[in-house]
Amino acid sequence: MAKRPLPLAGVYKLIEPGPVVLVSTVRDGRPNIMTMSWHMMVDFEPPIIACVMSNRDYSFEALKKTRECVINVPAAELARKVVGCGNTSGRDMNKFTKFGLTASAASSVRPPLINECYANLECKVVDTTLLTQYGIFILEVVKAWIDPSNKHPRTIHHQGKGKFAVDGEIIKLPSKMK
Amino acid sequence: MAKRPLPLAGVYKLIEPGPVVLVSTVRDGRPNIMTMSWHMMVDFEPPIIACVMSNRDYSFEALKKTRECVINVPAAELARKVVGCGNTSGRDMNKFTKFGLTASAASSVRPPLINECYANLECKVVDTTLLTQYGIFILEVVKAWIDPSNKHPRTIHHQGKGKFAVDGEIIKLPSKMK
Repeated sequence: MAKRPLPLAGVYKLIEPGPVVLVSTVRDGRPNIMTMSWHMMVDFEPPIIACVMSNRDYSFEALKKTRECVINVPAAELARKVVGCGNTSGRDMNKFTKFGLTASAASSVRPPLINECYANLECKVVDTTLLTQYGIFILEVVKAWIDPSNKHPRTIHHQGKGKFAVDGEIIKLPSKMK
Repeated sequence: MAKRPLPLAGVYKLIEPGPVVLVSTVRDGRPNIMTMSWHMMVDFEPPIIACVMSNRDYSFEALKKTRECVINVPAAELARKVVGCGNTSGRDMNKFTKFGLTASAASSVRPPLINECYANLECKVVDTTLLTQYGIFILEVVKAWIDPSNKHPRTIHHQGKGKFAVDGEIIKLPSKMK
């Protein structure tokens, strides 16, 4: 399943709807995956994304130190693996092995893309002003990839405690909004 | 349709899934509504929410000046009004009148609750460190309301240009995640 580059101007369409994502980092050569729902778009182009991590998360230190991550967007078929990654820590295991996820090399950052996710956003940390107080990282997406064969991926949205809303009906209304 | 208070510890369940929301502000006695998708949870309790507004938005100045807003969560039935609010400016009109939305008094802030939304979060601005550079407001939810009669509201998630995914199937997986 070959991914193609996604123009950076289209990144907001993936993040603005608020899907659960998988964040990959690498530290001292060890890749890790974190399940994340606390993120938002900040600017269109270059795409700027804010996200929140707890300093108790193993990925927090990796991202703070290396300043690189990949935001991977899973479709609903991966929900069990998403929950698995959210319920375990990279301190104790290699989550790629544990959950049968495969890594491939990114083009601009060291953390790997997660192949099973239909989109992958290579990110660099550009601001940590609010990191100590709120755990907020400001990321710039420097390269984006999408699976052209997955025309209508249904993402999942976490409502708390393992309950997810899967994308259902798609409605299209006349709009001037970007 | 009487709302009941929602314990603040439950607020994240409304925002974490990434629904489109309507933000109400008031300035010089004039209430306004803005459609917003760029927001995220920052902390559970007290609930802290980050959001992004452009300084071209009429609501930006109101929120910056008054430091109060209400985040109102609409269900899918309100999609047309949500798009209407997103395509117009409070500079030119009263959006409550224009879109047939009704206001009721909040308990802790001046901006009104939008009655037709199934949940309302009264917010105060607590941090504007990143406002000038990124348009990021940090909000604390000081009071929350929910419509107890709407058991399974289906929210909408903006995929860009007036295209929305409506909540579909709900899946529940065993999880230790909050």
